[in-house]
This record gives sequence, C-alpha cells and structure tokens, in this order.
Amino acid sequence: MKEEISSVTLYNIDLPSGVHFNKLTQVYAKYGEVEGCGENVILVCHALTGSHRLTGQKRQGEPDPWWIPMVGDGKAIDTRKFCAICFNNLCSPYGSTSPISINPSDGTMWRMKFPILSPRDVAFAQHCALNALGIKKIYAVVGGSLGGMIASEYAISFPQATPRCVMIAAPDRLYPQAIAFNTVQRHTIMADAEWNDGNYDGIGPAKGLAAARMLAMITYRSEQSFSKRYMRDMARGKADDWQGQFKIESYLDHHGQEILSRFDANCYLYLTRMMDLQDVGEGRGGIDNAWKQYSGNNFLGIGVSSDILFPNWQIEEAVRSADKNGVFASYEEIESDNGHDSFLIDFDQLDDCLRPFIRNH
Amino acid sequence: MKEEISSVTLYNIDLPSGVHFNKLTQVYAKYGEVEGCGENVILVCHALTGSHRLTGQKRQGEPDPWWIPMVGDGKAIDTRKFCAICFNNLCSPYGSTSPISINPSDGTMWRMKFPILSPRDVAFAQHCALNALGIKKIYAVVGGSLGGMIASEYAISFPQATPRCVMIAAPDRLYPQAIAFNTVQRHTIMADAEWNDGNYDGIGPAKGLAAARMLAMITYRSEQSFSKRYMRDMARGKADDWQGQFKIESYLDHHGQEILSRFDANCYLYLTRMMDLQDVGEGRGGIDNAWKQYSGNNFLGIGVSSDILFPNWQIEEAVRSADKNGVFASYEEIESDNGHDSFLIDFDQLDDCLRPFIRNH
Repeated sequence: MKEEISSVTLYNIDLPSGVHFNKLTQVYAKYGEVEGCGENVILVCHALTGSHRLTGQKRQGEPDPWWIPMVGDGKAIDTRKFCAICFNNLCSPYGSTSPISINPSDGTMWRMKFPILSPRDVAFAQHCALNALGIKKIYAVVGGSLGGMIASEYAISFPQATPRCVMIAAPDRLYPQAIAFNTVQRHTIMADAEWNDGNYDGIGPAKGLAAARMLAMITYRSEQSFSKRYMRDMARGKADDWQGQFKIESYLDHHGQEILSRFDANCYLYLTRMMDLQDVGEGRGGIDNAWKQYSGNNFLGIGVSSDILFPNWQIEEAVRSADKNGVFASYEEIESDNGHDSFLIDFDQLDDCLRPFIRNH
Repeated sequence: MKEEISSVTLYNIDLPSGVHFNKLTQVYAKYGEVEGCGENVILVCHALTGSHRLTGQKRQGEPDPWWIPMVGDGKAIDTRKFCAICFNNLCSPYGSTSPISINPSDGTMWRMKFPILSPRDVAFAQHCALNALGIKKIYAVVGGSLGGMIASEYAISFPQATPRCVMIAAPDRLYPQAIAFNTVQRHTIMADAEWNDGNYDGIGPAKGLAAARMLAMITYRSEQSFSKRYMRDMARGKADDWQGQFKIESYLDHHGQEILSRFDANCYLYLTRMMDLQDVGEGRGGIDNAWKQYSGNNFLGIGVSSDILFPNWQIEEAVRSADKNGVFASYEEIESDNGHDSFLIDFDQLDDCLRPFIRNH
C-alpha cells in the first residue's frame, strides 16, 4: 500500500459560513485505490495539530503520521479493500489554505485577516475537493477530536453521500468547559507580546504557544494516567527550589517546546476557534433537526471513559440524539486511563470498535 | 459577635523546611471569645486567594469575608460557644509576611528572593502564633482547598494539641494533575514580559496573572455548572468574529480582571508552589506513618462530587489512610454541580457535614 500526497485547489468557492475564497488549496494523503465513483473511500478527518498523513514513514520536514495501526493492508481501515483519504484541514499549517497562506487579494500572508472557519466549512471544502477528484459518494467518514466534529458535520451536511460516520472522542456541539480551555489557550498566545496582533516573523509568541500546548496536554490525558506515570516524582532538583521540577512539569515543558518546531500560533488560534464553533444544530433548527437530516444512515460514537476534554457522556448524548431522530446510531466506549488521547494510543480497543462497524454496515 | 483583626509577630523562627526568619508577621481575624488555654478555639485555614476574614462586613480596602454562613452565633462554627481564628497564610498578600514584604536583611521587597514555603511551614507558623497568644490546645482545625492542606498538616504536626481536623476539598498530598494546572498558571505569569523575574512595580504581569486566574476558574467549577449556566450562549457579537464572545469567555475574562485589583503575581507563584509541596508523608516515612501520628484523634474529610481539581476519590483516599492508621476518620460528600468551589457555595450541605462533627466529637 503506497502513500500518495497531493493537493486539490478549488476556485471561487463559497463556504457555508458565507466566506468566499477565490482560491482554496487542500493537501491530502491517499492510501489504497479509489473504486468507481468513490464507493470504497473512507474519509478520515484529523485533529487539532494532526495532519493529512495517516500512515507511512516518518520523514524529515513532514508531519508524522498519526494513525499507523489503524490504516493499512489488513487493518481496521483495510487499504486492500478501502481507499483512505485524509485532507489537511483548512487553517492548519501543513499545506492547506490557512492564516500562513498568501492572501491573493494583497499578496501578503493572511495572518489575523483570515476568516474564522467552522468545522462545517472544513467539511464542505473537503466534500468539494472529493467531488473535484471524481468522488461522489464515499463509504464512510471517520474522525477523532476536532476530526470527529468535522466528520459529523460532513455526514449531516451530505447524508446522501455518506452512509456511515464514526465520531471519536468528540461532541456534536462544543460544551462550555471545552470553550473555556480553548479561551485560556488563545489568551496565553494573544497575551504574549511577541504575538503582536498576529504580525510576527518566525515562531512569534513562543512562550504563549508553549503555554497553550501545556494546558492542552493536561486535557488530553487524565489524572489517573499522570498519577500512574509520574505521581510526585521529581525530574530534577527539589520542589522547594525554583529550579526544581516535578516529572509532570518536565512532561508539560517538553510538549510546550515540541509544538514550537511544528506549528504556527495564528493557526492555533483559528483551529481552537473552529472547535468552539462546532454545533451541528446551528442554522439547522437545533440538534434534533440536524440529526434528522442524517436519518437512515449509520452512526457510531466512540467515547473514552477518562476523557476530561470531551467527556464520554457528551458522545453518548450525541448518539442518543442521532438515535431518536432516525439514525442507526450506536455507542462504544474505550475503557482507558489515557484520557482524550486514547484514540491515538489504545489501538486494540479502537480496532475492536471500528472494524465491525466498517465491515457490518 | 464582633470581628477582631490583629497580628502576631514572631522573631527568630525556624520553619520545618529549614527556613529561618528573623521576623515573621501573621495577620489574623478572631470571632468569639477564647476560653481557658484555647480549648474552644477553632482554627480555620483559608484557600489560595482567600484571606483571614471569615465573616463580617465588606469593607473597602479589605479582602471580602468568605465563610459568612458558616461562622457566627448559632452557625455551624457557633461563636457563642467557640472562638474562630483565621490567619492570613504566609505568602499571601493580605498582610502576613510574603514576597511583597520587606526583607529586613536588605530593606527591599523580598519578591522572588522569598523562600518557598510548604503547607507544613504555614501550619507551624500558625501554631507558633497561637502559642504566642496563649492558646496551647485548640478544639479543631478546619480548612478548604489549600486551607484543607494546611489543616491536615496542622493536625498531623500537632496531634496532642488538635483533637479534631476537617479537611474540605483537599488531598493529603497533591496529585500530578493539580501540579500540572499550577505549572501552567505559573508559566503564564512568568512568560509575561511584565513579570520581569518578579521585579515589577504596580500590577506587573497583568495578562499573565489574568490567564492564570482564568485557568484556575475552570478548575474551580465543573462542566455541569458551566453547561447549566452558559451552555453556548453568546455574551456579545457572533462567535465567528474575533470580537464575539461566548458567555463562558466573558465569565473567565471577568475573573481574570477581578484578581488584578486584589492580588500579587509573585504571591500567586509562591502560593501555587506551596500547594504543589503538599504531602503529609514527606519526611515522615510516607502517608501511613504520617497519619499514625494523628491516631486517636478525629478527622473528617469532605469531598465534592464534581470537583475536578481535587476529585472526591482523593479525599476518600486520605480518609482511608487516616482510618487504617488509627484515626477516627470519616468521609462526607457534598453532592453538587458547583465543583471545587462548592465549599464556598453549598453552605447547607457543608453545615450538615460540619455541625454534627463539631458537636459530637
């Protein structure tokens, strides 16, 4: 199974939020072969700082693949039968149109003049891109976290073309605590003098972006996993000295620094706001009416027992809403201490949920 | 019942962490009359940004009282019978010795040269201050959050003088997720260029301190309470505009600004680090040996069902440890969606827990 990386550029496109782009580029990765009009395509949507690369080799200068155990020959998304396609989300810095792209109207980087986009906009743009590739109806859409939000928007926006949807560790609308965590993360970036209203060169607000990532990392794991791994162990020195550092502090520090080499602060602002906008009921007369649009199709919601960012009950609630509005909806749960990030860690359980859903529906 | 505010200054004092102070001042508030050698005194310990003022009138230029429904004539801490005393914790900016005090050795503000203190140090200093007031053995020590940590340290440090201890919404040692939240809060303060290694005049790192408080506020409530109060309601504008603000964002913003008028950033650093140091087992041969020191005395742990900062199971764990080491320990739970802050909100339930414990033991 080979990995093909390419891009689709659309011209003169109006997104659901009313934003118009003269030119919109979306980078994507493809694994396996498209059959017919795309009936065997599984569209996979990636999370906040993820990318279009689902599997393949690590390569310098390219984002790391993030779903290696799930996509490939004989895997849950079996590329001998299915063709997996993943677009780099709009607003992400890995090649698709984003705040670091050039605004064709003035030839300079968009920065904070970029329009705020919603998961619905992103889903719409990916649908248009698939159409441009000759793919009219897909087999399924699958995504985790922000990718799960885009997946559910995709399904509800294009129910005729999307008979199956899997939404992992994501709600059908963002609840206020998640908005709150995003708010603080944006605040730390914008409070950094180096952010300069988005007009920076190079890394820009390194301390602010690091702080945002540190906070995000807390919400991606759980108290149980931190307690098992670190408890109160020291990484260096003594805790009653400002040079001393607990292992948990060192862990956060590491991730705060790691993001700087691979992400852009303005993109981070836009992608967290995108998440805030997630609400399948918005502009559709509420949650129930939104799910009614998807009735007759198949929906699997997967929650994680220890997720503090998008608690399992939020996914259960989405499944209940879908179910009572005529969707063939089911709920599965990953029992794990790994928190929100379980969809990037607990592959055996994920396989157990995903494989039968993909095979049997 | 009158409120008396006064202070105790100790000279040449060595704290348990080995820190020596030539002079140490602790402001306190007293409600009710001391009998004998203090057998009717209930020492109350306050939380991170709280103060010595338990009850009384709001007065300009003074911190607001924080436990009005709990302390007074006929209340759970009945000042007709008991004398409630609350010290302003060391490191807090409300009058006791802290990073904003003058370092007598060089006549300048301590700032980041202040020593890092632990809850054990604070408990020890409060014990010495009570002794200086002629109070040798108290009736009980009670505290919530950081105050609960100080209370448990007080009890274990001075078991002969402290027959009863109530620890509310606090663990007997800080778990790594709480350290992580504190770490990010300190990072936002220290990342603010206005912090300047602690050498600021006036408010200093306003944006960093605001961000720290915003994050703290998320951990003080719960998803359920935010969902009930705000869900996805807007405070102003539209969410797809950078000027738009969800109500939850406005709530955080308000609290981020509010702290600036009443707190000091360096004190905030020291008090969060103080919390990180909480571990009753440290230097005592572990948790079990620590609680053994308190055997034969009475301990009540009160958890909050929705607390995400110090989850209820951490308080249960402390109670189990106390119980198996000979303490007469019991656990009560506040059933509430108000999260960690329930000890400042759900007074009826708190009264139900506290009143019988104080009366019956």
